[in-house]
Amino acid sequence: MAYQAKKLINDPKDVVTECIEGMVETYPGLQYLDGFPDIKVVLRADVSGSTFDKVAVISGGGSGHEPAHAGFVGEGMLTAAVCGDVFTSPPVDSILAAIRAVTGPKGCLMIVKNYTGDRLNFGLAAEEAKSEGYTVEMVIVGDDCALPPPRGVAGRRGLAGTILVQKIAGAAAAAGLCLADVTAEAKHASEVVGTMGVAFSVCTRPGHVTSDRLGPGVMELGLGIHGEPGAAIADLLPADVVVSHVLKQILSSETQYVPITRGNRVVLMINGLGTTPTMELMIAAGKAVPQLQLEHGLAVDRVYTGSFMTSLDMAGFSISIMRADPKILQRLDAPTKSPFWPVGVEGDHPPAKIPVPVPPRRTETHDEFSTQPQELSEQGCILEVAIEAAAKEIIRLRDQLNEWDSKVGDGDCGTTMFRGAMAVLEDIKKCYPLNDAARTINEIGVTIGRVMGGTSGILYEIFCRAAYASLKGTPQVTSKQWTKALDAAIAAVSKYGGAYAGYRTMLDALIPASTVLKERLNAGDDPVTAFVLSAEAAWSGAESTINMQAQAGRSSYVSAEMLASAPDPGAMAVASWYTAAAFAVQSKLRAPKD
Amino acid sequence: MAYQAKKLINDPKDVVTECIEGMVETYPGLQYLDGFPDIKVVLRADVSGSTFDKVAVISGGGSGHEPAHAGFVGEGMLTAAVCGDVFTSPPVDSILAAIRAVTGPKGCLMIVKNYTGDRLNFGLAAEEAKSEGYTVEMVIVGDDCALPPPRGVAGRRGLAGTILVQKIAGAAAAAGLCLADVTAEAKHASEVVGTMGVAFSVCTRPGHVTSDRLGPGVMELGLGIHGEPGAAIADLLPADVVVSHVLKQILSSETQYVPITRGNRVVLMINGLGTTPTMELMIAAGKAVPQLQLEHGLAVDRVYTGSFMTSLDMAGFSISIMRADPKILQRLDAPTKSPFWPVGVEGDHPPAKIPVPVPPRRTETHDEFSTQPQELSEQGCILEVAIEAAAKEIIRLRDQLNEWDSKVGDGDCGTTMFRGAMAVLEDIKKCYPLNDAARTINEIGVTIGRVMGGTSGILYEIFCRAAYASLKGTPQVTSKQWTKALDAAIAAVSKYGGAYAGYRTMLDALIPASTVLKERLNAGDDPVTAFVLSAEAAWSGAESTINMQAQAGRSSYVSAEMLASAPDPGAMAVASWYTAAAFAVQSKLRAPKD
Repeated sequence: MAYQAKKLINDPKDVVTECIEGMVETYPGLQYLDGFPDIKVVLRADVSGSTFDKVAVISGGGSGHEPAHAGFVGEGMLTAAVCGDVFTSPPVDSILAAIRAVTGPKGCLMIVKNYTGDRLNFGLAAEEAKSEGYTVEMVIVGDDCALPPPRGVAGRRGLAGTILVQKIAGAAAAAGLCLADVTAEAKHASEVVGTMGVAFSVCTRPGHVTSDRLGPGVMELGLGIHGEPGAAIADLLPADVVVSHVLKQILSSETQYVPITRGNRVVLMINGLGTTPTMELMIAAGKAVPQLQLEHGLAVDRVYTGSFMTSLDMAGFSISIMRADPKILQRLDAPTKSPFWPVGVEGDHPPAKIPVPVPPRRTETHDEFSTQPQELSEQGCILEVAIEAAAKEIIRLRDQLNEWDSKVGDGDCGTTMFRGAMAVLEDIKKCYPLNDAARTINEIGVTIGRVMGGTSGILYEIFCRAAYASLKGTPQVTSKQWTKALDAAIAAVSKYGGAYAGYRTMLDALIPASTVLKERLNAGDDPVTAFVLSAEAAWSGAESTINMQAQAGRSSYVSAEMLASAPDPGAMAVASWYTAAAFAVQSKLRAPKD
Repeated sequence: MAYQAKKLINDPKDVVTECIEGMVETYPGLQYLDGFPDIKVVLRADVSGSTFDKVAVISGGGSGHEPAHAGFVGEGMLTAAVCGDVFTSPPVDSILAAIRAVTGPKGCLMIVKNYTGDRLNFGLAAEEAKSEGYTVEMVIVGDDCALPPPRGVAGRRGLAGTILVQKIAGAAAAAGLCLADVTAEAKHASEVVGTMGVAFSVCTRPGHVTSDRLGPGVMELGLGIHGEPGAAIADLLPADVVVSHVLKQILSSETQYVPITRGNRVVLMINGLGTTPTMELMIAAGKAVPQLQLEHGLAVDRVYTGSFMTSLDMAGFSISIMRADPKILQRLDAPTKSPFWPVGVEGDHPPAKIPVPVPPRRTETHDEFSTQPQELSEQGCILEVAIEAAAKEIIRLRDQLNEWDSKVGDGDCGTTMFRGAMAVLEDIKKCYPLNDAARTINEIGVTIGRVMGGTSGILYEIFCRAAYASLKGTPQVTSKQWTKALDAAIAAVSKYGGAYAGYRTMLDALIPASTVLKERLNAGDDPVTAFVLSAEAAWSGAESTINMQAQAGRSSYVSAEMLASAPDPGAMAVASWYTAAAFAVQSKLRAPKD
């Protein structure tokens, strides 16, 4: 069924004019002729015809092939582009205006795609310009390899290979060559390039309905760039098979569309036809290069991947192959200010890329040298007590945490935390170097990263890693250092988690705890008292989340009414393990010594 | 109905790997880490971490946003890009591998789009890297202006504005700044940019079916880049209305998404979401600039139009606006080797482009000074006789030509030629300067260009213009010069028409005529005899077309059997007028003088 394609346009009859206006707004180096929009000529803003001291290179044709041709205007490529209406050759008047505007004493070369309308209109303009005293040459590009050879050169349409010819001519002109030499280089280039296209969808002319010619599951091979049907229809195939077919057709030794044989050097252009994403074009490029090298025995010197010569909103791509020689490479590599000529392509490809060695992967398992020490230091004992108490409290609270979470989240907070706590209890006996507090905190992070999963898992891992980074190198940790580590850990959780105080997250227990800890230590309290008081702050902070609106995480999608029925389970979990640890440390240190 | 979108891919699970392979094949300056494809890190081929003397700038995230981010790797922009699977944050291992591979003594800045997965994975990698001794900073970009402000910064997704932040950071790093300063510039940039997107279609994840969420005639406003639904659905509107809506939303003084007020200078990015053609993006750019200037009172310093941060094959676009200052412009304008950063954008836009004056339009009417001379020279008389005889013969043959053409073409050859011949008979009395043969031939071209139309009209116009260019400045024409002019005219018709001898066209009468004319003159025949003999050659040539296969023009689509039933009417027309002219000249010159 025919349908109206969605387009980001205004009045369909204005698309070309408005497109040119946008190009000229985007690129300061582009300008249009007065007489616009009747005369649609885009030219270099820095060229004024009669005094231009290089050969002018002019191209153009119907519009709908953007960025061709206006997007290739710029020093080192086209001097001017003459734009017709969509898929319609520009009128002789416009072409003649372009010639007059940019042609200096060295003359101009027009590069024209092989379509009757373009050939005749550019041809007539050339003849008129000659009779006005201009020196004008024309090179016609017919690079299409889709149609059977009996049609001859006359039947070969001008396709994306034209862009390569334009670049070569533009670079030759910029190098100061005379018209005859620029023309000779362009003509030679046009004779050693072949192109073939594949379409997945038809294109829709602005203001027209879309043809349903190309149904689901099929593609067209050997199409043109004006919506004309392809030479054949085939079932959709994987990218590498499609690429292989196209390469074989272009390089066929039977038809000899292009004079390329094994051992030649080539440049490759993978051209999107309008709506093919960069990802897919890159996939085709990645398959074409090794096929050209291995199956066709060609050296690929340059790869140009992008949408250069399009057909409105057609999905699909074309491949162009040009026989390369040092002169052609020099022209293609020459700098240009044309906005759409691809950059970063020039320069030699190494014969095979040697990947950069990857450094050792991060420790996903515990440090192999980590073991629980034979004998624990005093701090080691305290750390062991605190960790065990914290983990056991989480294990005890599993169902309660799940219950809260079922009201305000996805109900698995207790289960996730339980998984982590069980693993910590297991690993503490096996491999935590408890006499080194910094490394022990790091190992807790490893345990959690290995088993917990989910956002809370990675947040706790970040918490431990940040604390470790802060504590690192201090096996004996002072209360000041613990405070600093807690701050670093909180900052990391806040930064990477994107939450702050009052967002109804674990931070609403951690931040009050850290604040009170610092206050009490500064006020001169002994560390244990300060720890216990800070645990109380964590607890009140966590409980206060019941009145908070969620601003991060899954709870932010839950209604206010529902949120008021439970505290944040993440904050409650923090309050629970923190408090358990504080009380355990208190009993351990205040208990009568054995 | 859900359907399978057509994609140029192989196995859906390999799209990211194969896309990266294509990028690395295309751009010699890009390289990937060993460990590929498990670890998907694209980095500058010229950077080796431990000795890199600049701040490394790393970005990345889920794939499906190509060219982001790997396409922005290059000197002056990103040092490395870490690629996750489609729409999936890369794992910590890959991020850490990237940090280790490119970070030197000056440290590294990671620029991360504001998504929980990215924030956490990059955050954890940063903390691990820090604990290994690297200096790492992170800037999180949340430039989305679609969601209501209560969601706060936490709810603002990272969109295309991220690319501008990456460029600014990359340029600051390339300028040799320290990590704190590079970070400060990136953070500042992230705070003064806002983005909003509009989608015309949903995107399809490789290997998945396409959602039918977005039906015909509607668009989504305020969508993200991972296929998530937009904030609102609206009827499709013209481009300028859509652009106006988006600009108002980004610049709303109520929500204050971005700190931009009247009188500010800004840069504008029009970003395609994957399958929006360049033409449509340029139309949006062309509308956005004047709206920003006139309706919002902003000066637009730079315009970036293209597909930078896409969402697979989504149709649509986003607009980003960043408040500009001299430092930001300096960073955006700084050169980069990143393949996809747009070129030709830098440099000041003149306040208003003054169009290049268009030279006078070509003469569509006859030269106003042309009139038939009061008294004709001898050559003028001969020319008059020849032209009139030729025109009258065409008029006489109208039906015969139409009949032949109805067999091998579209049946109007006689009518078209008749139109031209009638006009020539009229104009010859009014305005042909018959004593100046060159200008008379030119005026015949003007007459034909004005009335004939069709391919044959333009070919005859080219014929006359080329002959004129050859004869120009020689009012008295020798037979040698006539011969030369005929050759030039034939060459032009052949070149621009794309036909050669034997193609079954008018050339099959013209070429034999020209050949015999030259032969006879060289053999010493008098000019009149040579003319008559060449007319005979034209006639045999035209008649011989009945046995030719057509290789140009509409006849090339006609069956061989049909072609054998009539000669080429274009060639017969030439033979007729040429012969009529020759006989008329012969009678005129050989008749007894009065």
